[in-house]
Amino acid sequence: MTRVVVIGADAAGASAAAGIKRTAPEWDVIMLDRGTYTSYAACGLPYWAAGQIPDKSQLVARSPEQHRANGIDVRLQHEVTGIDVAAGTLDVRQPEGEHVLGYDALLIATGAGPALPPVDGLEAPNVHAIHTIPGVQSLVESMPGSGAKAVVVGAGFIGLEMAEAFVDRGLDVTVVDLADHPMVSLDTDMGQLVAEQMAAQGITGIFGQALTRIVVGPDGLAESVETDSASFPCDVVVVALGVKPQVDLAVAAGLPIGHSGGIATDDHQQVVPGIYAAGDCVDTYHRLLGHTVVMPLGTHANKQGRVAGINIAGGDARFPGIIGTAITKVGRTCIARTGLSQKQSEASGFETTSVTSTTPVIAHYMPDPGRMTVKLTATVDNGRLLGAQIVGDRPLAAKRIDTAATAIWNSMTAEDLLNMDLSYAPPFSPVWDPVQIAARRLLSSSGG
Amino acid sequence: MTRVVVIGADAAGASAAAGIKRTAPEWDVIMLDRGTYTSYAACGLPYWAAGQIPDKSQLVARSPEQHRANGIDVRLQHEVTGIDVAAGTLDVRQPEGEHVLGYDALLIATGAGPALPPVDGLEAPNVHAIHTIPGVQSLVESMPGSGAKAVVVGAGFIGLEMAEAFVDRGLDVTVVDLADHPMVSLDTDMGQLVAEQMAAQGITGIFGQALTRIVVGPDGLAESVETDSASFPCDVVVVALGVKPQVDLAVAAGLPIGHSGGIATDDHQQVVPGIYAAGDCVDTYHRLLGHTVVMPLGTHANKQGRVAGINIAGGDARFPGIIGTAITKVGRTCIARTGLSQKQSEASGFETTSVTSTTPVIAHYMPDPGRMTVKLTATVDNGRLLGAQIVGDRPLAAKRIDTAATAIWNSMTAEDLLNMDLSYAPPFSPVWDPVQIAARRLLSSSGG
Repeated sequence: MTRVVVIGADAAGASAAAGIKRTAPEWDVIMLDRGTYTSYAACGLPYWAAGQIPDKSQLVARSPEQHRANGIDVRLQHEVTGIDVAAGTLDVRQPEGEHVLGYDALLIATGAGPALPPVDGLEAPNVHAIHTIPGVQSLVESMPGSGAKAVVVGAGFIGLEMAEAFVDRGLDVTVVDLADHPMVSLDTDMGQLVAEQMAAQGITGIFGQALTRIVVGPDGLAESVETDSASFPCDVVVVALGVKPQVDLAVAAGLPIGHSGGIATDDHQQVVPGIYAAGDCVDTYHRLLGHTVVMPLGTHANKQGRVAGINIAGGDARFPGIIGTAITKVGRTCIARTGLSQKQSEASGFETTSVTSTTPVIAHYMPDPGRMTVKLTATVDNGRLLGAQIVGDRPLAAKRIDTAATAIWNSMTAEDLLNMDLSYAPPFSPVWDPVQIAARRLLSSSGG
Repeated sequence: MTRVVVIGADAAGASAAAGIKRTAPEWDVIMLDRGTYTSYAACGLPYWAAGQIPDKSQLVARSPEQHRANGIDVRLQHEVTGIDVAAGTLDVRQPEGEHVLGYDALLIATGAGPALPPVDGLEAPNVHAIHTIPGVQSLVESMPGSGAKAVVVGAGFIGLEMAEAFVDRGLDVTVVDLADHPMVSLDTDMGQLVAEQMAAQGITGIFGQALTRIVVGPDGLAESVETDSASFPCDVVVVALGVKPQVDLAVAAGLPIGHSGGIATDDHQQVVPGIYAAGDCVDTYHRLLGHTVVMPLGTHANKQGRVAGINIAGGDARFPGIIGTAITKVGRTCIARTGLSQKQSEASGFETTSVTSTTPVIAHYMPDPGRMTVKLTATVDNGRLLGAQIVGDRPLAAKRIDTAATAIWNSMTAEDLLNMDLSYAPPFSPVWDPVQIAARRLLSSSGG
């Protein structure tokens, strides 16, 4: 009997395990996790914190019992402490003690952990990271009342989502970031648009200031967040400075690490023969940059887990890489990006042209047409699209990033995009889709 | 001085005229229209009828005065009655009399007119087509009060939009169509989903019945709509059986007509040297069918008008054809399609596989996640995507058709689509985008 062991029971691990068991039901598929949950939607945690999701069980896509009903041997509170690649065994620690577990094939899906700054005060119980169900549960249970002061350190995806969550809870919200604008994966002009929208929604944005410490009062609770130039009183703090791949096990086992710090895999998610890795713990190929990056998103974890599962089960699937598509919202302001920003393009050696275009989200004569700004970046020489950024009202504005992502994925030019047959009716779009309006402006600005 | 004459002052004509004047400001650009409006949004007419747009002036994208301020010589109530191709002249009838107008280049943008059934009763003043501002104005001014009976003949795009409009006005709405389901450009299974959603919203759908006559009472008003098997009392009637290209002028001038009944053009929108045509009056190349079709949509008219304008002004632009993308809504139910339906694929000789998948519109644990059904059709031999259909709650569901449209435009396979980097966050999408969930199901069903 073939035994597959999966380390990590979230998106990548659980996707792979389910796929393997479906393809090879006679195989022994063991899924280990050091925690007590399987397949939970980490991306939903801010919305639980916001009170939009009443019960944490809704965040669990598939419970341990459901996985077990599918034939997967789920073992929780089982932490892998070592991988012996030559022997094909794992050292496993569980509450009852330690043991060695052999495998024929191994999937490492250890995910990512919060990147915490080297400052004092992080241990205070009103300082939170948004990473696990138990972690967010403590925030939900201790959520201060309306009017209390929340400070969010970090104005990236989770930072903005938590700003929205605290606004939903009636708190007075300050977001602090070292960068000069929120969402550093956007260009400055688009990031400043986000900053304006945050301000219009009553969120205080403090940019260009470095966190120096969290001041803990005599009661053991954080009472202010200090930067290099100011101090912000707080009743609750969220630190959202991103995550880093959890690769200690892989490093200790001598497995290769990519240049962005995740486990290095080939396009079949294989690390070395018999060992695969997928999800937030890996380096992922960026199709436009031409090298690997760490891009910890549930969508990639699911896809890579599927690919790893197919290959482990003897099939042949390839993960084609990513182009940096991402989306989020803060209140009514929806934000999306794909491909390379202008600054990222230029840093990568492309000679580029960019244009920004602001239009209604739907036909201008409809009630509440909203507004959205699209920025497109293309190569100067042949007009090939490199990137798109959108800031706009309502999800319908930002989800248009997928049109741009699909166009960029297929190496389309601005002219190609302009002429493409996209859907139009007044409740959905202006007669030229806003993405095409930007493409038209890009062509005009380059004499096309 | 070069003189360009444009016949028709709506989407295609006005786009071209504006482009020509921008490129060649010294040219004489004359835009003739037999009506009294320019650049009005015909697609917005149902929403004006619904009362969502308070003032008809909002439907006018650019008034005659605005066109004139841009240097275009707009001449309204000027009807072209003949084209002398050899002489390069037009016969023009205006209120003051008739005259001959010479041109160096001509753009025919005469649009489409309502396709009216060969039945009695159409002349009754409470029977309306939704085609022009004056036509819809008479409907708006005579709109019966809440509880009155509206009958809509035709369950296509305009028919459903008018059903929604009458529901918004509080009327009791019956939609009658010869086909066995609404939206004949959808497959039967997807069309039946639309029918169910219409019924759930209180709209009576009568399918598979042929209109035989509209019965006019002694007061001259339509009092019932009769089909081959039933009679439906009415206070107001809309006939929405589609449109047909207005090509009489082109036919009389000996210009070529395409096999779908529109004016035949090349991919530069040129009919014969010096004469161009664009918009609802032309045959348009369908990239998947491999032949021309009539697809009267404002989005194509604008794009073709732009292309014609560039070429007339001495540039070189190509209209690459269409793939049949369309979108609409009836109440909360949003409907979109692109590419070929299953029945259309099979009629075109493709050996196809199709799959239908129903998912939430956004992450299932978010408040009000909605539901959407995606149908994908692909070739059996290589999995190349041919078509997509979506029926779902809210615009965010249906506008995803653009992802499928862009994928189909680029000849992607289901596997390509599945692995593509689309945007994900809980307020926008499940972790696998619903279009990708359908692609995954398509692969599974074909053993992939």
